[in-house]
Amino acid sequence: MPKLWNETIEAHRHQVRDAILDATAALVFEHGLRSVTMAQIAEKAGIGRATLYKYFPDVDAILHAWHHRQITTHLTQLTEARDTVNDPGQRLEAVLQAYARIAHQTRSHHNTEIGRFLHRDEHLADAQQQLHDLVSSLIADAAQAGDLRADTPAGELAAYCLHALNAAGSLPAQAAVDRLVAVTLAGLRVPSDHNPV
Amino acid sequence: MPKLWNETIEAHRHQVRDAILDATAALVFEHGLRSVTMAQIAEKAGIGRATLYKYFPDVDAILHAWHHRQITTHLTQLTEARDTVNDPGQRLEAVLQAYARIAHQTRSHHNTEIGRFLHRDEHLADAQQQLHDLVSSLIADAAQAGDLRADTPAGELAAYCLHALNAAGSLPAQAAVDRLVAVTLAGLRVPSDHNPV
Repeated sequence: MPKLWNETIEAHRHQVRDAILDATAALVFEHGLRSVTMAQIAEKAGIGRATLYKYFPDVDAILHAWHHRQITTHLTQLTEARDTVNDPGQRLEAVLQAYARIAHQTRSHHNTEIGRFLHRDEHLADAQQQLHDLVSSLIADAAQAGDLRADTPAGELAAYCLHALNAAGSLPAQAAVDRLVAVTLAGLRVPSDHNPV
Repeated sequence: MPKLWNETIEAHRHQVRDAILDATAALVFEHGLRSVTMAQIAEKAGIGRATLYKYFPDVDAILHAWHHRQITTHLTQLTEARDTVNDPGQRLEAVLQAYARIAHQTRSHHNTEIGRFLHRDEHLADAQQQLHDLVSSLIADAAQAGDLRADTPAGELAAYCLHALNAAGSLPAQAAVDRLVAVTLAGLRVPSDHNPV
């Protein structure tokens, strides 16, 4: 049964890798980026240092892997939110709500030493492009189906949405995040004739 | 006439200081942050190295002074935009347009080595707070005067506006920036009864 054996090894390697990423994130968020050592990570992950070095050469590499896992998880959450409903308008709303929630949850990581370190990551540009494409196509679908404004290209509206929802990172509570999503969605609607502002 | 003489010296010092800041910004944006030396700056500003060191101890100090001048100029542009009109709704619109224009013009500085260096600047947090307060109070005035939405506090709407308008940094042309301002303002309006999204 070499195949099963290989699968077991593979599952074990994934578990160890996840434990390393979790331990590193916990240590870095507690003590700061530059004070964390490979020895501390090995101890917190419950593995030997020699084993740790078989997985990662240094702390930076672990942090990049952790960030990549975060990004992948967030993109998966957004596509899952999209796939919970069928109506194009509701799909857009579900994805924007999920995005705002992520921006709110990860707020403590930004504008910090760690945030700046990770945002040099090349994965991020790819992920931002994927995110932009996902929201653009949902906006294009919703515009075709209903009454989203037609005076602005879907790509520009996607940039508007994603930037606006990043404000969730500065909001204190989930109720404020919900209001932000409602305000952002209102910007996408067909403008009424009167122009009160 | 010692007073006039002092004023002349003061004006001369301001001119030299401005020339140093301009020379440094030009060199840094052309060659990158770490390759610029005090000798190059002195040469480009048309002053001696000894004179340069009387004004600033190093390149970092000059860049911070340049950034501070940029921030002050931008805040002045926003208050000037506010003071060109009297109607609260128009004031808000004028300031948001001016902000979007600045975000569009300075787009090349962000997400770069220089942008990351400068955004550690403590001036920036102060300026962001001033900006947030300016836009919040304009929103509160416009809400009292007319039909901005009342379901969301002015401070949250200000955070929404400023984040949304940062999308101007990723837009290619002024026409797209104008559309972004229109979409962002639409989000501030009283929601109509129907809910198309």
